[in-house]
Amino acid sequence: MIIDSHAHVILPPERQLALMKDAGVNRTILFSTTIHPETKTNMADFEAELNQLYDILNGVKNPLQERVRSLAELAEVVKENPDKYLGFGPIPFGLSYQENLEWISKYILSNGFRGIGELAPGSGQTAKLEPLFEASMEVGNLPLWVHTFLPLSFDDIKKLLYLAKKYPTVPLILGHLGGIHWLNTLKAVRDLENVYLDLSATFTTIAPSFAIQEYPERTFFSSDAPYSSPLTARTILEQTVADKEVLEQVLGGNIARLLKI
Amino acid sequence: MIIDSHAHVILPPERQLALMKDAGVNRTILFSTTIHPETKTNMADFEAELNQLYDILNGVKNPLQERVRSLAELAEVVKENPDKYLGFGPIPFGLSYQENLEWISKYILSNGFRGIGELAPGSGQTAKLEPLFEASMEVGNLPLWVHTFLPLSFDDIKKLLYLAKKYPTVPLILGHLGGIHWLNTLKAVRDLENVYLDLSATFTTIAPSFAIQEYPERTFFSSDAPYSSPLTARTILEQTVADKEVLEQVLGGNIARLLKI
Repeated sequence: MIIDSHAHVILPPERQLALMKDAGVNRTILFSTTIHPETKTNMADFEAELNQLYDILNGVKNPLQERVRSLAELAEVVKENPDKYLGFGPIPFGLSYQENLEWISKYILSNGFRGIGELAPGSGQTAKLEPLFEASMEVGNLPLWVHTFLPLSFDDIKKLLYLAKKYPTVPLILGHLGGIHWLNTLKAVRDLENVYLDLSATFTTIAPSFAIQEYPERTFFSSDAPYSSPLTARTILEQTVADKEVLEQVLGGNIARLLKI
Repeated sequence: MIIDSHAHVILPPERQLALMKDAGVNRTILFSTTIHPETKTNMADFEAELNQLYDILNGVKNPLQERVRSLAELAEVVKENPDKYLGFGPIPFGLSYQENLEWISKYILSNGFRGIGELAPGSGQTAKLEPLFEASMEVGNLPLWVHTFLPLSFDDIKKLLYLAKKYPTVPLILGHLGGIHWLNTLKAVRDLENVYLDLSATFTTIAPSFAIQEYPERTFFSSDAPYSSPLTARTILEQTVADKEVLEQVLGGNIARLLKI
């Protein structure tokens, strides 16, 4: 089974299904999004859409309301095609242990979501995820998916890995493989068997190449659609990995095992 | 004709030719390199090879000597397959106008190289390239190829574009499309017709997609091998660009026109 382990909701929904079909993807782990850049066909509209993120950050739009709206959109898309999608639900950043538990109960478990993310802490903020690690453990170790490309420094990533070490039953997926810090990240996760590596946002193919060579059972194919396409992301891995059995695990087996698909 | 507009010397040379053949690349614009990470098959050796760059920066190895050595290696590879390669030669950073002219005469023109690069200024340093723009103009407008991924800020890129505006006959190739600043970079080069966009190091396919849509005559296919493969870089563009005529220009026509190949 080919599983795209990380893509955002694309509109219209038929387009997402068509992209999956193009790439021969059987299932997608779907994440919410507060913006829809894929619906914009020129640069000015695309930028205006991105700027809505700033409106949310700056309080021009209500962040909580936007998150709940995007979560409802995700739940609906997943519900319409339960054989195609599994959802990972978003959570506000910086909640207390109790608040995390309440949100997880109300918005994650009730929707049948199988993990939490995309979490996108700012630099200097990753340690604040500790109450979420605790809450995840409490509800049966829901996987956490954290964006680790910029703006995170390697120091931020190390603090995140410290939490993974402290809560070894909680699966932690490092989105984008540590970004520009991929080499140090690969060295740092050696003994952390609850840490998994998402292979999207590949600016050099050397990164997924070594990631898969070192951790063939902990690396996940993912498109991060709409920021890449499932077909392109799959093709990069097919052109990078020579061993067919390893490739099969990376393209689906590994995430299937983690999520018991 | 399919032209990979930016790749570094790969050892052994047969491997580079094989990678070109795999990708159906007819010609490659070849750049020197002081290190050969492609010869390393495990992460520790790869890191040791990268660390040699620090030895050069820190003066443990003589930077000028390493540059001259890499330049000779490039010249030899190009000379052995003049129907496959055109060279771009390196130049030390921060030379005066006169020193630039001397280096260009001694190492660039004498080897038949067709441009200068890869230039990799640090943040805050791009304005120091002005004497090189002047020298390039003096010798007939040799194209300059500048790395614009990290560590450059968008402010650094703007200073570079100021030089492109001041020296409108000197072709400037923005390596890696401005990196994480790709959207601002695309907006900033609108009226600078001597500025070209290198499409390597694609961490999101939205970047080359808009770059090509906006500047179909100024965008270049490039692998940045060994950091990606020519086949992967070509495939990404083939999967991103629907218009076959535009694709043909991006895959070769545009760089052929600039370098009169």
